[in-house]
Amino acid sequence: MTITHETIFTDVKAIRKTSPLVHNITNFVVMNNTANALLALGASPVMAHAENEVADMCGIAGALVINIGTLSDPWIAAMIKAAQAAEHKGIPMVLDPVGAGATPYRTDTARELIHRFRPAIIRGNGSEILALGDPGAVTKGVDSASKADQALDTARALHREHGSTVCISGETDFIVHSDAVIRIENGHAMMPRVTGLGCTASALCGAFAAVNPNPVQAAAHAMAVMGIAGEMAGETADGPGSFQVRFLDALYRISGSDIQQRFKA
Amino acid sequence: MTITHETIFTDVKAIRKTSPLVHNITNFVVMNNTANALLALGASPVMAHAENEVADMCGIAGALVINIGTLSDPWIAAMIKAAQAAEHKGIPMVLDPVGAGATPYRTDTARELIHRFRPAIIRGNGSEILALGDPGAVTKGVDSASKADQALDTARALHREHGSTVCISGETDFIVHSDAVIRIENGHAMMPRVTGLGCTASALCGAFAAVNPNPVQAAAHAMAVMGIAGEMAGETADGPGSFQVRFLDALYRISGSDIQQRFKA
Amino acid sequence: MTITHETIFTDVKAIRKTSPLVHNITNFVVMNNTANALLALGASPVMAHAENEVADMCGIAGALVINIGTLSDPWIAAMIKAAQAAEHKGIPMVLDPVGAGATPYRTDTARELIHRFRPAIIRGNGSEILALGDPGAVTKGVDSASKADQALDTARALHREHGSTVCISGETDFIVHSDAVIRIENGHAMMPRVTGLGCTASALCGAFAAVNPNPVQAAAHAMAVMGIAGEMAGETADGPGSFQVRFLDALYRISGSDIQQRFKA
Repeated sequence: MTITHETIFTDVKAIRKTSPLVHNITNFVVMNNTANALLALGASPVMAHAENEVADMCGIAGALVINIGTLSDPWIAAMIKAAQAAEHKGIPMVLDPVGAGATPYRTDTARELIHRFRPAIIRGNGSEILALGDPGAVTKGVDSASKADQALDTARALHREHGSTVCISGETDFIVHSDAVIRIENGHAMMPRVTGLGCTASALCGAFAAVNPNPVQAAAHAMAVMGIAGEMAGETADGPGSFQVRFLDALYRISGSDIQQRFKA
Repeated sequence: MTITHETIFTDVKAIRKTSPLVHNITNFVVMNNTANALLALGASPVMAHAENEVADMCGIAGALVINIGTLSDPWIAAMIKAAQAAEHKGIPMVLDPVGAGATPYRTDTARELIHRFRPAIIRGNGSEILALGDPGAVTKGVDSASKADQALDTARALHREHGSTVCISGETDFIVHSDAVIRIENGHAMMPRVTGLGCTASALCGAFAAVNPNPVQAAAHAMAVMGIAGEMAGETADGPGSFQVRFLDALYRISGSDIQQRFKA
Repeated sequence: MTITHETIFTDVKAIRKTSPLVHNITNFVVMNNTANALLALGASPVMAHAENEVADMCGIAGALVINIGTLSDPWIAAMIKAAQAAEHKGIPMVLDPVGAGATPYRTDTARELIHRFRPAIIRGNGSEILALGDPGAVTKGVDSASKADQALDTARALHREHGSTVCISGETDFIVHSDAVIRIENGHAMMPRVTGLGCTASALCGAFAAVNPNPVQAAAHAMAVMGIAGEMAGETADGPGSFQVRFLDALYRISGSDIQQRFKA
């Protein structure tokens, strides 16, 4: 799978042209950010979490993004109902396992959603992806040189078992599919100091998956655009407050030449 | 009903002077934005959605704003209880039918709230207002030259049946009451790229309705201030991130001469 | 208890170095702000409110912050469970009684949490602290020269009865413990025009309490940093929108010499 500045910008243009509806069931902390990031890029966000309407909402959406931050039982019920509707309709589902590993409730919920619905894309940080693995496999760990390598092993196992494209975000972003790994080297040091940029990455995966049937490209394109917009924002930011503002402006303004000049894989 | 820069600024000054408490039952995505917009203009926002306290909160508020985004059953129960309290106390209620037409759940809830409580002001975009109409009446549609005209017909029907002032927001904002229509031409092209500015418009309708007993003037003044603040923000914004920041600054700084110079009806 | 620019900056450095996990059960309006403020300062925020996981989350946290804005019954149940876990683990709990006095539901919940769990720190504005007092004691009121004095009397009573350090925030912030009162004079006039800065102060109390076992110092340091960052932000802000952005930037950049030059007690 080749990712180039052209393949990235082709999808950006498709999002801007078709403005795909992305249905998000996401956490309270980041709803505003992810909605604004989708709008800035050109997609159309909708947030809906009631069991009464998630299937209807999926019926008009181009992708479903499920994010398990600030989880609770009624939301899990809605996630399951929405995932069933997405499966039935054949739209891609992105899963963000926020906080998997922090509590059994999050870990178990993420695993259940993966086992039952085989998301097109799973995006998390290294710890979260690690937590999704078979605990036995991970903790034996003697063959792994580092936590990052362990997360890659877990990602490969998730791909083998469920067919999901797995994205591990961090200083380098890894997109894992079959035995190949795509590395994206864009980004900015201030990104971890803003809440919800991981969740935003997952939301953008949804937008790209809505216009590109290949989940590997969709995930790689989303991570590249996140990283490039982060670099554009970071150049003039005085801190995480101004970074956020400029990040949204960058998603709105990002051009083919910005991508061409900055893309690093 | 005449709307002038003087009638608008008289209400802005009244909001700044009396700081009316606006009780919002609104969606998770925009709570922060609408609270900040109300504060920036000079009003005092409160968000409360528990059945246990909405009636008490209405008891100390000057207006109630109900917004059906991110809807769920417990929230509907609270909306009904709050609307009853607002009716009993005689404070104006503003309804924002977010997503009416997208799912039956939203459409049905918006219609029920209108039929039972006859909001002083209903504010939505064209599609949402259209969705509130009698489906038969709307779909016959042969007399309507455009979707905008259809929404105006629906707004007029809502006014006739329930007495509500209906505001259809868009590039031009229409405030419909009896057979007359007020047009507000202010605004900026970047406004649809920021989440929750429609919800913010509804929240400001609440602030204006709290200081002005005439819902037609209240709605028109709110839409004019939204549009003018949008123009002020848009002049120097690099994208939707900086637009949001400057929009709040503009609501805070807006002066009588800003309104005089910019108001277009 | 002496508070100096050195004691303040020692704690800021400890937060930046150890990045304590602060578990927040807080209201929907401010979740994003308080998470971003904690991140900007160098702490690590987590928001979790499900009964299923709050005890597990407390088990890995350095402090618990409970904020009763946008309250509802399931959240109260989770607050109680989290407070029990915090007590059991011996981590400090901060209570923000948002809206106490506005409705009986809020007042009663705040009082119950105080009586059962004796928070290390209670932080609210004058009206909220007043509402927590014994109604009889407050309303007799003939010995109190002003509402601020009444709130101080209530704070002293709360301290005597429950051992809590009580912080009354306002133009001057008062930190009340035993019979002594610490006054912090930093701050900026635009702070009340931004939603959630009181909630942010409580969240920062949690971060400081996670690195400093003395709740009086923790609360005073948090209020000083809030006020100083507010002054830094206010110097170049055009309104509450740009104020918010610069406030986060200031929390991120605040240095020992900023504190030395600005701290006013």
